[in-house]
Amino acid sequence: MGPTGSKIDSSGGCVTGLFIVFEGGDGVGKSTQVRFLAEHLTHAGHRLVVTHEPGDTPIGLKIRQVVLDPATGDVDSRAEALLIAADKAQHVFEVIRPALAAGQIVISDRYVDSMVAYQGAGRELGAEEIRGLAEWATGGLVPDLTVILDVEPDRAVNRIREKDRVEGAGDAFHERVRKEFLDLADAAPERYLVLYARDTREANAAAIAARVDALLAERADSSAS
Amino acid sequence: MGPTGSKIDSSGGCVTGLFIVFEGGDGVGKSTQVRFLAEHLTHAGHRLVVTHEPGDTPIGLKIRQVVLDPATGDVDSRAEALLIAADKAQHVFEVIRPALAAGQIVISDRYVDSMVAYQGAGRELGAEEIRGLAEWATGGLVPDLTVILDVEPDRAVNRIREKDRVEGAGDAFHERVRKEFLDLADAAPERYLVLYARDTREANAAAIAARVDALLAERADSSAS
Repeated sequence: MGPTGSKIDSSGGCVTGLFIVFEGGDGVGKSTQVRFLAEHLTHAGHRLVVTHEPGDTPIGLKIRQVVLDPATGDVDSRAEALLIAADKAQHVFEVIRPALAAGQIVISDRYVDSMVAYQGAGRELGAEEIRGLAEWATGGLVPDLTVILDVEPDRAVNRIREKDRVEGAGDAFHERVRKEFLDLADAAPERYLVLYARDTREANAAAIAARVDALLAERADSSAS
Repeated sequence: MGPTGSKIDSSGGCVTGLFIVFEGGDGVGKSTQVRFLAEHLTHAGHRLVVTHEPGDTPIGLKIRQVVLDPATGDVDSRAEALLIAADKAQHVFEVIRPALAAGQIVISDRYVDSMVAYQGAGRELGAEEIRGLAEWATGGLVPDLTVILDVEPDRAVNRIREKDRVEGAGDAFHERVRKEFLDLADAAPERYLVLYARDTREANAAAIAARVDALLAERADSSAS
């Protein structure tokens, strides 16, 4: 288990912000919930950075083009996993750690769990091996809270019109991905919030805001004591 | 220790060709020796593939642009290592394994040892961790012979006119890289040939040809018996 966004990290820097991640299949409404939470926190006066994986650095953007473009052709599954890990390493280095070190709240649409679920379980490269790779890439930085928007894969994928390489991978693939997300949450419930993505977006937004507010209140209590 | 090019590999495929790698710092004359050996083997009637790392696949070419371009800016050292590993994974998948499986001789200018030396020792990410990463990327495929062209770093780097990001990394970096190459050869002398790069290129070419001819003769003996 690595450090969370609020503790001393493995590179020795003091990380003081709060690190919140949204995970789940494509088309489950992650970006809507990211926006709702960002509005809620901004309204409450917090400084925050909203970001996403893959592709939210100049290098990451180039990597995303290689990995997701159907025209790229036959990408070796290990090469794909290593490119995704490189994107994560650069993202943590360039965006996430600096923001946390400045005391900001970081909200990321996808992080390490996506890699474990898609490459480890979905592509069957082994969840444990991929988790080790992702942890090395990110220097072991663990989110304070991961929100999983869960839904049966067939109900989510239908919302995507143009399928990219990953989305076009088939039902069994998406079932393995979903199960891995839920297994990750089961293994550390104190750091996860699992919601059913077919519940109303207002109900889910309220549940997320309540959990994040509770985390911020805990943080305020512990820094006051 | 992984399989060599002539044995059953870890993915279960029978690899029948011969896999020869040239390693060493930049500017030591690797490409000249690759060309001499290719001419020698072609003249003797062998089928061969001459290739290089990084960048000898369409994906690898894009990765090489990201890693080596001075304009890319501040690349996290782990992101750099993961990009280089991705290039290796795709190279083995797309070029090296298919050629070996078809019984060809593969000559590669750089392979896993460059990653261990440059990222592990040079960038100080840890030779053992980087070796593990590279072995995962390549499915444990080990060359039958690695030729190291060794020279004092200051005598080699002077030959490079336009230094890229890696070449511009300083003397201590290049000393660590050189020492790592020599340590790798010391640990498995039966799979290495270390030559002094300042000896005449004709003398070195003759030594390389003799060692490769001996390997091919062994191969012929063992398949005949």
